[in-house]
Amino acid sequence: MAEIELMRRVLASNDALAAVQRERMDQHGVLGINLMSGPGAGKTSLIERTAEALGPKYRVQVIEGDIQGDLDARRVVAKGVRCIQINTQGACHLDALMLAPALAEIDLADLDLLVIENVGNLVCPAEFALPAHYNVTVISTPEGSDKPVKYPLMFSKSDLIIVNKLDLLPMVDFDLPSLKQAVNKLKPGITIIETSAKTGQGVQEWIAWLEERLRARSPARARGASPKR
Amino acid sequence: MAEIELMRRVLASNDALAAVQRERMDQHGVLGINLMSGPGAGKTSLIERTAEALGPKYRVQVIEGDIQGDLDARRVVAKGVRCIQINTQGACHLDALMLAPALAEIDLADLDLLVIENVGNLVCPAEFALPAHYNVTVISTPEGSDKPVKYPLMFSKSDLIIVNKLDLLPMVDFDLPSLKQAVNKLKPGITIIETSAKTGQGVQEWIAWLEERLRARSPARARGASPKR
Repeated sequence: MAEIELMRRVLASNDALAAVQRERMDQHGVLGINLMSGPGAGKTSLIERTAEALGPKYRVQVIEGDIQGDLDARRVVAKGVRCIQINTQGACHLDALMLAPALAEIDLADLDLLVIENVGNLVCPAEFALPAHYNVTVISTPEGSDKPVKYPLMFSKSDLIIVNKLDLLPMVDFDLPSLKQAVNKLKPGITIIETSAKTGQGVQEWIAWLEERLRARSPARARGASPKR
Repeated sequence: MAEIELMRRVLASNDALAAVQRERMDQHGVLGINLMSGPGAGKTSLIERTAEALGPKYRVQVIEGDIQGDLDARRVVAKGVRCIQINTQGACHLDALMLAPALAEIDLADLDLLVIENVGNLVCPAEFALPAHYNVTVISTPEGSDKPVKYPLMFSKSDLIIVNKLDLLPMVDFDLPSLKQAVNKLKPGITIIETSAKTGQGVQEWIAWLEERLRARSPARARGASPKR
Protein backbone atom coordinates (compact mmCIF):
# COMPACT_ATOMS: atom_id res chain seq x y z
CA MET A 1 0.00 0.00 0.00
CA ALA A 2 2.89 2.33 0.85
CA GLU A 3 4.26 1.67 -2.63
CA ILE A 4 0.96 2.56 -4.32
CA GLU A 5 0.52 5.77 -2.27
CA LEU A 6 4.08 6.87 -3.02
CA MET A 7 3.52 6.19 -6.73
CA ARG A 8 0.39 8.40 -6.70
CA ARG A 9 2.37 11.26 -5.18
CA VAL A 10 5.21 10.79 -7.70
CA LEU A 11 2.75 10.91 -10.63
CA ALA A 12 0.96 14.00 -9.27
CA SER A 13 4.25 15.91 -8.81
CA ASN A 14 5.32 14.88 -12.27
CA ASP A 15 2.05 16.06 -13.84
CA ALA A 16 2.40 19.43 -12.07
CA LEU A 17 5.99 19.97 -13.21
CA ALA A 18 5.18 18.94 -16.81
CA ALA A 19 2.31 21.46 -16.85
CA VAL A 20 4.63 24.30 -15.76
CA GLN A 21 7.20 23.32 -18.40
CA ARG A 22 4.47 23.15 -21.06
CA GLU A 23 3.28 26.65 -20.10
CA ARG A 24 6.77 28.03 -20.65
CA MET A 25 6.84 26.41 -24.08
CA ASP A 26 3.40 27.90 -24.86
CA GLN A 27 4.69 31.37 -24.02
CA HIS A 28 7.24 30.94 -26.80
CA GLY A 29 4.91 29.17 -29.24
CA VAL A 30 7.02 25.99 -29.11
CA LEU A 31 5.33 22.74 -30.15
CA GLY A 32 6.31 19.72 -28.01
CA ILE A 33 6.03 16.10 -29.15
CA ASN A 34 6.54 13.05 -26.91
CA LEU A 35 7.47 10.16 -29.21
CA MET A 36 6.95 6.73 -27.66
CA SER A 37 7.15 3.07 -28.79
CA GLY A 38 8.56 -0.31 -27.88
CA PRO A 39 12.26 -0.93 -28.58
CA GLY A 40 13.26 -0.67 -32.22
CA ALA A 41 9.93 0.47 -33.70
CA GLY A 42 11.66 3.25 -35.63
CA LYS A 43 11.37 6.40 -33.49
CA THR A 44 14.89 7.59 -34.33
CA SER A 45 14.45 6.84 -38.04
CA LEU A 46 11.26 8.93 -38.04
CA ILE A 47 13.12 11.75 -36.28
CA GLU A 48 15.85 11.55 -38.93
CA ARG A 49 13.17 11.93 -41.64
CA THR A 50 11.58 14.77 -39.65
CA ALA A 51 14.93 16.55 -39.36
CA GLU A 52 15.45 16.25 -43.13
CA ALA A 53 11.98 17.64 -43.90
CA LEU A 54 11.57 20.32 -41.22
CA GLY A 55 15.17 21.21 -40.32
CA PRO A 56 15.48 23.64 -43.25
CA LYS A 57 12.15 25.37 -42.44
CA TYR A 58 11.85 25.37 -38.64
CA ARG A 59 14.05 25.59 -35.58
CA VAL A 60 14.05 21.98 -34.35
CA GLN A 61 15.44 20.59 -31.09
CA VAL A 62 15.51 16.89 -30.20
CA ILE A 63 15.88 15.41 -26.72
CA GLU A 64 16.99 11.78 -26.78
CA GLY A 65 15.97 9.59 -23.86
CA ASP A 66 17.96 6.39 -23.45
CA ILE A 67 18.89 4.19 -20.53
CA GLN A 68 22.52 4.62 -21.51
CA GLY A 69 24.66 5.60 -24.48
CA ASP A 70 24.22 8.19 -27.23
CA LEU A 71 23.74 6.07 -30.37
CA ASP A 72 20.46 7.80 -31.31
CA ALA A 73 21.69 11.32 -30.48
CA ARG A 74 24.61 10.83 -32.87
CA ARG A 75 22.20 9.82 -35.64
CA VAL A 76 20.06 12.94 -35.05
CA VAL A 77 23.03 15.33 -34.89
CA ALA A 78 24.27 13.87 -38.19
CA LYS A 79 21.04 15.24 -39.71
CA GLY A 80 22.06 18.76 -38.70
CA VAL A 81 19.56 19.11 -35.87
CA ARG A 82 20.30 20.17 -32.26
CA CYS A 83 20.08 17.29 -29.81
CA ILE A 84 20.46 16.80 -26.06
CA GLN A 85 21.02 13.30 -24.70
CA ILE A 86 19.39 12.24 -21.43
CA ASN A 87 20.56 8.97 -19.90
CA THR A 88 18.03 7.58 -17.44
CA GLN A 89 20.68 5.29 -15.83
CA GLY A 90 18.39 2.30 -15.71
CA ALA A 91 15.00 4.02 -15.47
CA CYS A 92 12.41 2.73 -17.93
CA HIS A 93 10.92 6.09 -18.96
CA LEU A 94 11.54 9.84 -19.09
CA ASP A 95 9.77 12.11 -16.62
CA ALA A 96 9.40 15.87 -16.26
CA LEU A 97 12.13 16.14 -13.62
CA MET A 98 14.67 14.38 -15.85
CA LEU A 99 13.82 16.88 -18.60
CA ALA A 100 14.28 19.96 -16.41
CA PRO A 101 18.08 20.33 -16.84
CA ALA A 102 17.75 19.84 -20.62
CA LEU A 103 14.96 22.43 -20.84
CA ALA A 104 17.11 24.89 -18.86
CA GLU A 105 19.78 24.58 -21.56
CA ILE A 106 17.37 25.27 -24.42
CA ASP A 107 16.56 28.83 -25.54
CA LEU A 108 12.81 28.47 -26.10
CA ALA A 109 12.70 31.90 -27.79
CA ASP A 110 14.83 30.36 -30.53
CA LEU A 111 12.76 27.23 -31.07
CA ASP A 112 9.69 26.04 -33.00
CA LEU A 113 9.59 22.28 -32.47
CA LEU A 114 10.79 20.12 -29.60
CA VAL A 115 10.74 16.37 -30.26
CA ILE A 116 11.34 14.20 -27.19
CA GLU A 117 12.26 10.59 -27.97
CA ASN A 118 11.21 8.57 -24.94
CA VAL A 119 12.85 5.32 -23.79
CA GLY A 120 11.79 2.37 -25.96
CA ASN A 121 9.10 0.81 -23.79
CA LEU A 122 5.42 0.29 -24.59
CA VAL A 123 4.36 0.35 -20.91
CA CYS A 124 5.93 2.79 -18.43
CA PRO A 125 6.43 6.01 -20.47
CA ALA A 126 2.62 6.27 -20.86
CA GLU A 127 2.28 6.98 -17.12
CA PHE A 128 4.59 10.02 -16.99
CA ALA A 129 3.47 13.31 -18.53
CA LEU A 130 6.23 15.28 -20.29
CA PRO A 131 6.44 18.89 -21.45
CA ALA A 132 4.75 17.94 -24.73
CA HIS A 133 1.48 18.88 -26.38
CA TYR A 134 1.00 15.59 -28.16
CA ASN A 135 1.82 12.00 -27.31
CA VAL A 136 2.68 10.10 -30.47
CA THR A 137 3.01 6.31 -30.36
CA VAL A 138 4.85 4.37 -33.04
CA ILE A 139 3.98 0.73 -33.58
CA SER A 140 5.92 -1.25 -36.19
CA THR A 141 4.41 -4.00 -38.32
CA PRO A 142 6.76 -6.82 -37.16
CA GLU A 143 5.52 -6.30 -33.57
CA GLY A 144 2.07 -7.62 -34.51
CA SER A 145 -1.35 -6.00 -34.65
CA ASP A 146 -2.37 -7.29 -31.20
CA LYS A 147 -0.34 -4.63 -29.37
CA PRO A 148 -3.19 -2.14 -28.61
CA VAL A 149 -5.10 -4.95 -26.89
CA LYS A 150 -2.02 -5.91 -24.86
CA TYR A 151 -0.72 -2.41 -24.03
CA PRO A 152 -3.95 -0.39 -23.75
CA LEU A 153 -2.67 2.52 -21.62
CA MET A 154 -0.06 3.61 -24.18
CA PHE A 155 -2.61 3.73 -26.98
CA SER A 156 -5.34 5.39 -24.92
CA LYS A 157 -2.90 8.13 -23.84
CA SER A 158 -1.86 8.83 -27.46
CA ASP A 159 -2.96 11.68 -29.72
CA LEU A 160 -1.58 10.12 -32.89
CA ILE A 161 -0.57 6.59 -33.87
CA ILE A 162 2.10 5.94 -36.47
CA VAL A 163 2.21 2.45 -37.99
CA ASN A 164 5.83 2.18 -39.12
CA LYS A 165 7.85 -0.38 -41.15
CA LEU A 166 5.10 -0.57 -43.74
CA ASP A 167 7.75 -1.94 -46.14
CA LEU A 168 7.77 -5.18 -44.08
CA LEU A 169 3.97 -5.58 -44.17
CA PRO A 170 3.98 -8.28 -46.90
CA MET A 171 6.49 -10.35 -44.89
CA VAL A 172 4.87 -10.27 -41.44
CA ASP A 173 1.59 -11.30 -39.82
CA PHE A 174 0.13 -7.86 -39.23
CA ASP A 175 -3.60 -7.25 -39.63
CA LEU A 176 -3.90 -3.51 -40.32
CA PRO A 177 -7.75 -3.33 -40.18
CA SER A 178 -7.72 -5.21 -36.88
CA LEU A 179 -5.08 -2.84 -35.45
CA LYS A 180 -7.13 0.18 -36.51
CA GLN A 181 -10.24 -1.28 -34.91
CA ALA A 182 -8.40 -1.99 -31.63
CA VAL A 183 -6.85 1.50 -31.54
CA ASN A 184 -10.21 3.15 -32.25
CA LYS A 185 -11.80 1.22 -29.42
CA LEU A 186 -9.24 2.72 -27.00
CA LYS A 187 -9.21 6.22 -28.52
CA PRO A 188 -12.19 6.77 -30.82
CA GLY A 189 -11.46 8.82 -33.94
CA ILE A 190 -7.68 9.01 -33.38
CA THR A 191 -5.60 9.66 -36.51
CA ILE A 192 -3.47 6.73 -37.67
CA ILE A 193 -0.64 7.44 -40.12
CA GLU A 194 1.07 4.60 -42.00
CA THR A 195 4.76 5.07 -42.73
CA SER A 196 7.99 3.43 -43.71
CA ALA A 197 10.77 5.59 -42.31
CA LYS A 198 13.11 3.39 -44.36
CA THR A 199 11.57 3.98 -47.81
CA GLY A 200 9.97 7.33 -46.96
CA GLN A 201 6.47 6.05 -47.74
CA GLY A 202 3.81 7.99 -45.83
CA VAL A 203 6.35 10.22 -44.08
CA GLN A 204 4.92 13.32 -45.82
CA GLU A 205 1.63 12.69 -44.01
CA TRP A 206 3.43 12.79 -40.63
CA ILE A 207 5.28 15.95 -41.67
CA ALA A 208 1.97 17.56 -42.75
CA TRP A 209 0.45 16.64 -39.37
CA LEU A 210 3.36 18.37 -37.60
CA GLU A 211 3.33 21.43 -39.89
CA GLU A 212 -0.37 21.97 -39.34
CA ARG A 213 0.32 22.18 -35.59
CA LEU A 214 3.48 24.25 -36.02
CA ARG A 215 1.52 26.82 -38.08
CA ALA A 216 -1.22 26.96 -35.45
CA ARG A 217 1.37 27.84 -32.77
CA SER A 218 3.47 30.30 -34.75
CA PRO A 219 1.20 32.06 -37.26
CA ALA A 220 4.03 34.37 -38.36
CA ARG A 221 6.13 31.49 -39.64
CA ALA A 222 3.14 30.13 -41.53
CA ARG A 223 3.42 33.22 -43.78
CA GLY A 224 7.12 32.56 -44.22
CA ALA A 225 7.96 35.66 -42.12
CA SER A 226 10.43 34.00 -39.81
CA PRO A 227 12.89 31.82 -41.67
CA LYS A 228 15.33 29.60 -39.80
CA ARG A 229 18.42 31.35 -38.50
CA MET B 1 15.41 8.95 -1.58
CA ALA B 2 12.36 7.34 0.03
CA GLU B 3 11.47 5.97 -3.40
CA ILE B 4 14.90 4.39 -3.90
CA GLU B 5 14.95 2.83 -0.41
CA LEU B 6 11.46 1.39 -0.87
CA MET B 7 12.50 -0.05 -4.26
CA ARG B 8 15.50 -1.77 -2.64
CA ARG B 9 13.23 -3.42 -0.09
CA VAL B 10 10.74 -4.50 -2.78
CA LEU B 11 13.53 -6.10 -4.84
CA ALA B 12 15.02 -7.90 -1.80
CA SER B 13 11.63 -9.38 -0.79
CA ASN B 14 11.03 -10.43 -4.37
CA ASP B 15 14.43 -12.15 -4.60
CA ALA B 16 13.75 -14.04 -1.36
CA LEU B 17 10.29 -15.23 -2.46
CA ALA B 18 11.59 -16.28 -5.90
CA ALA B 19 14.34 -18.33 -4.20
CA VAL B 20 11.79 -20.20 -2.06
CA GLN B 21 9.61 -20.89 -5.11
CA ARG B 22 12.65 -22.11 -7.06
CA GLU B 23 13.58 -24.46 -4.20
CA ARG B 24 10.13 -26.06 -4.33
CA MET B 25 10.57 -26.58 -8.07
CA ASP B 26 14.01 -28.11 -7.48
CA GLN B 27 12.50 -30.63 -5.05
CA HIS B 28 10.32 -31.88 -7.93
CA GLY B 29 13.01 -31.63 -10.63
CA VAL B 30 11.05 -28.97 -12.50
CA LEU B 31 12.98 -26.74 -14.91
CA GLY B 32 11.85 -23.10 -14.91
CA ILE B 33 12.41 -20.66 -17.79
CA ASN B 34 11.75 -16.90 -17.65
CA LEU B 35 11.23 -15.77 -21.26
CA MET B 36 11.69 -12.02 -21.77
CA SER B 37 11.77 -9.58 -24.72
CA GLY B 38 10.38 -6.30 -25.97
CA PRO B 39 6.82 -6.30 -27.36
CA GLY B 40 6.29 -8.54 -30.37
CA ALA B 41 9.73 -10.17 -30.55
CA GLY B 42 8.17 -13.63 -30.86
CA LYS B 43 8.06 -15.10 -27.34
CA THR B 44 4.62 -16.67 -27.84
CA SER B 45 5.54 -18.05 -31.27
CA LEU B 46 8.63 -19.68 -29.72
CA ILE B 47 6.45 -21.15 -26.96
CA GLU B 48 4.09 -22.54 -29.63
CA ARG B 49 7.07 -24.24 -31.32
CA THR B 50 8.30 -25.47 -27.93
CA ALA B 51 4.87 -26.93 -27.14
CA GLU B 52 4.85 -28.75 -30.49
CA ALA B 53 8.32 -30.21 -29.94
CA LEU B 54 8.29 -30.98 -26.21
CA GLY B 55 4.58 -31.36 -25.44
CA PRO B 56 4.54 -35.02 -26.59
CA LYS B 57 7.67 -35.90 -24.54
CA TYR B 58 7.50 -33.81 -21.36
CA ARG B 59 4.90 -32.40 -18.98
CA VAL B 60 4.89 -28.72 -19.90
CA GLN B 61 3.15 -25.82 -18.14
CA VAL B 62 3.12 -22.25 -19.43
CA ILE B 63 2.36 -19.12 -17.38
CA GLU B 64 1.42 -16.16 -19.55
CA GLY B 65 2.14 -12.69 -18.18
CA ASP B 66 0.23 -9.86 -19.86
CA ILE B 67 -0.96 -6.45 -18.72
CA GLN B 68 -4.45 -7.48 -19.78
CA GLY B 69 -6.23 -10.01 -21.98
CA ASP B 70 -5.55 -13.66 -22.80
CA LEU B 71 -4.59 -13.57 -26.49
CA ASP B 72 -1.29 -15.42 -25.92
CA ALA B 73 -2.75 -17.96 -23.46
CA ARG B 74 -5.33 -18.95 -26.09
CA ARG B 75 -2.55 -19.53 -28.63
CA VAL B 76 -0.63 -21.74 -26.17
CA VAL B 77 -3.70 -23.77 -25.12
CA ALA B 78 -4.44 -24.38 -28.81
CA LYS B 79 -1.10 -26.25 -28.91
CA GLY B 80 -2.36 -28.70 -26.28
CA VAL B 81 -0.27 -27.35 -23.43
CA ARG B 82 -1.50 -26.29 -19.97
CA CYS B 83 -1.48 -22.54 -19.46
CA ILE B 84 -2.31 -20.10 -16.66
CA GLN B 85 -2.91 -16.44 -17.51
CA ILE B 86 -1.66 -13.72 -15.16
CA ASN B 87 -2.87 -10.18 -15.83
CA THR B 88 -0.64 -7.58 -14.23
CA GLN B 89 -3.37 -4.90 -14.46
CA GLY B 90 -1.00 -2.24 -15.72
CA ALA B 91 2.26 -3.42 -14.15
CA CYS B 92 5.18 -3.57 -16.56
CA HIS B 93 6.67 -6.89 -15.40
CA LEU B 94 5.93 -10.12 -13.54
CA ASP B 95 7.28 -10.63 -10.04
CA ALA B 96 7.46 -13.58 -7.65
CA LEU B 97 4.41 -12.46 -5.65
CA MET B 98 2.23 -12.29 -8.77
CA LEU B 99 3.32 -15.84 -9.59
CA ALA B 100 2.48 -17.26 -6.16
CA PRO B 101 -1.25 -17.94 -6.81
CA ALA B 102 -0.43 -19.57 -10.17
CA LEU B 103 2.26 -21.77 -8.58
CA ALA B 104 -0.21 -22.83 -5.87
CA GLU B 105 -2.51 -24.14 -8.61
CA ILE B 106 0.21 -26.19 -10.32
CA ASP B 107 1.02 -29.76 -9.21
CA LEU B 108 4.82 -29.63 -9.38
CA ALA B 109 5.01 -33.41 -8.89
CA ASP B 110 3.30 -33.69 -12.28
CA LEU B 111 5.56 -31.29 -14.17
CA ASP B 112 8.87 -31.23 -16.03
CA LEU B 113 9.06 -27.79 -17.64
CA LEU B 114 7.59 -24.45 -16.58
CA VAL B 115 7.86 -21.66 -19.14
CA ILE B 116 6.97 -18.19 -17.86
CA GLU B 117 6.31 -15.63 -20.59
CA ASN B 118 7.04 -12.25 -19.05
CA VAL B 119 5.40 -8.95 -20.06
CA GLY B 120 6.84 -7.61 -23.34
CA ASN B 121 9.29 -5.03 -22.05
CA LEU B 122 13.05 -4.90 -22.52
CA VAL B 123 13.64 -2.90 -19.30
CA CYS B 124 11.69 -3.64 -16.12
CA PRO B 125 11.32 -7.48 -16.13
CA ALA B 126 15.13 -7.77 -15.82
CA GLU B 127 14.97 -6.32 -12.30
CA PHE B 128 12.55 -8.88 -10.82
CA ALA B 129 13.72 -12.45 -10.18
CA LEU B 130 11.12 -15.15 -10.91
CA PRO B 131 10.94 -18.83 -9.93
CA ALA B 132 13.05 -19.73 -12.96
CA HIS B 133 16.47 -21.32 -13.40
CA TYR B 134 17.29 -19.51 -16.61
CA ASN B 135 16.52 -16.05 -17.95
CA VAL B 136 16.13 -16.22 -21.72
CA THR B 137 15.94 -12.99 -23.73
CA VAL B 138 14.52 -12.90 -27.24
CA ILE B 139 15.61 -10.10 -29.56
CA SER B 140 14.09 -9.94 -33.05
CA THR B 141 15.97 -8.73 -36.12
CA PRO B 142 13.60 -5.82 -36.99
CA GLU B 143 14.34 -4.26 -33.57
CA GLY B 144 17.93 -3.55 -34.63
CA SER B 145 21.28 -4.85 -33.44
CA ASP B 146 21.91 -1.85 -31.15
CA LYS B 147 19.57 -3.17 -28.44
CA PRO B 148 22.19 -4.73 -26.09
CA VAL B 149 23.97 -1.36 -25.95
CA LYS B 150 20.70 0.44 -25.18
CA TYR B 151 19.18 -2.10 -22.75
CA PRO B 152 22.27 -3.53 -21.02
CA LEU B 153 20.62 -4.85 -17.82
CA MET B 154 18.31 -7.24 -19.69
CA PHE B 155 21.18 -8.79 -21.63
CA SER B 156 23.59 -8.95 -18.67
CA LYS B 157 20.92 -10.76 -16.60
CA SER B 158 20.31 -13.36 -19.34
CA ASP B 159 21.58 -16.93 -19.52
CA LEU B 160 20.67 -17.40 -23.17
CA ILE B 161 19.93 -15.00 -26.04
CA ILE B 162 17.62 -15.98 -28.89
CA VAL B 163 17.84 -13.88 -32.05
CA ASN B 164 14.41 -14.41 -33.61
CA LYS B 165 12.77 -13.43 -36.94
CA LEU B 166 15.84 -14.59 -38.84
CA ASP B 167 13.57 -14.84 -41.90
CA LEU B 168 13.40 -11.01 -41.97
CA LEU B 169 17.19 -10.58 -41.78
CA PRO B 170 17.62 -9.81 -45.51
CA MET B 171 14.96 -7.06 -45.30
CA VAL B 172 16.14 -5.19 -42.18
CA ASP B 173 19.23 -3.32 -40.98
CA PHE B 174 20.47 -5.83 -38.44
CA ASP B 175 24.19 -6.44 -37.97
CA LEU B 176 24.43 -9.94 -36.47
CA PRO B 177 28.21 -9.86 -35.77
CA SER B 178 27.84 -6.48 -34.06
CA LEU B 179 24.94 -7.80 -31.91
CA LYS B 180 27.01 -10.83 -30.89
CA GLN B 181 29.94 -8.62 -29.97
CA ALA B 182 27.73 -6.30 -27.86
CA VAL B 183 26.06 -9.24 -26.08
CA ASN B 184 29.41 -10.88 -25.34
CA LYS B 185 30.71 -7.66 -23.84
CA LEU B 186 27.80 -7.71 -21.35
CA LYS B 187 27.84 -11.47 -20.72
CA PRO B 188 31.06 -13.09 -21.95
CA GLY B 189 30.62 -16.52 -23.51
CA ILE B 190 26.81 -16.52 -23.42
CA THR B 191 25.12 -18.84 -25.91
CA ILE B 192 23.27 -17.08 -28.74
CA ILE B 193 20.75 -19.12 -30.74
CA GLU B 194 19.41 -17.84 -34.07
CA THR B 195 15.82 -18.77 -34.89
CA SER B 196 12.80 -18.04 -37.01
CA ALA B 197 9.79 -19.19 -35.02
CA LYS B 198 7.80 -18.54 -38.21
CA THR B 199 9.75 -20.85 -40.56
CA GLY B 200 11.11 -23.15 -37.82
CA GLN B 201 14.71 -22.37 -38.72
CA GLY B 202 17.06 -22.86 -35.73
CA VAL B 203 14.22 -23.87 -33.42
CA GLN B 204 15.74 -27.35 -32.99
CA GLU B 205 18.80 -25.73 -31.42
CA TRP B 206 16.57 -24.03 -28.78
CA ILE B 207 14.76 -27.32 -28.16
CA ALA B 208 18.09 -29.14 -27.76
CA TRP B 209 19.23 -26.48 -25.25
CA LEU B 210 16.05 -27.07 -23.22
CA GLU B 211 16.24 -30.88 -23.45
CA GLU B 212 19.84 -30.90 -22.24
CA ARG B 213 18.65 -29.04 -19.10
CA LEU B 214 15.50 -31.15 -18.73
CA ARG B 215 17.59 -34.35 -18.81
CA ALA B 216 19.99 -32.95 -16.20
CA ARG B 217 17.04 -32.32 -13.82
CA SER B 218 15.13 -35.55 -14.39
CA PRO B 219 17.65 -38.34 -15.21
CA ALA B 220 14.87 -40.96 -15.28
CA ARG B 221 13.09 -39.28 -18.14
CA ALA B 222 16.34 -39.03 -20.09
CA ARG B 223 16.25 -42.85 -20.35
CA GLY B 224 12.65 -42.72 -21.55
CA ALA B 225 11.41 -44.22 -18.26
CA SER B 226 8.71 -41.67 -17.55
CA PRO B 227 6.63 -40.92 -20.61
CA LYS B 228 4.09 -38.13 -20.55
CA ARG B 229 0.78 -39.00 -18.94
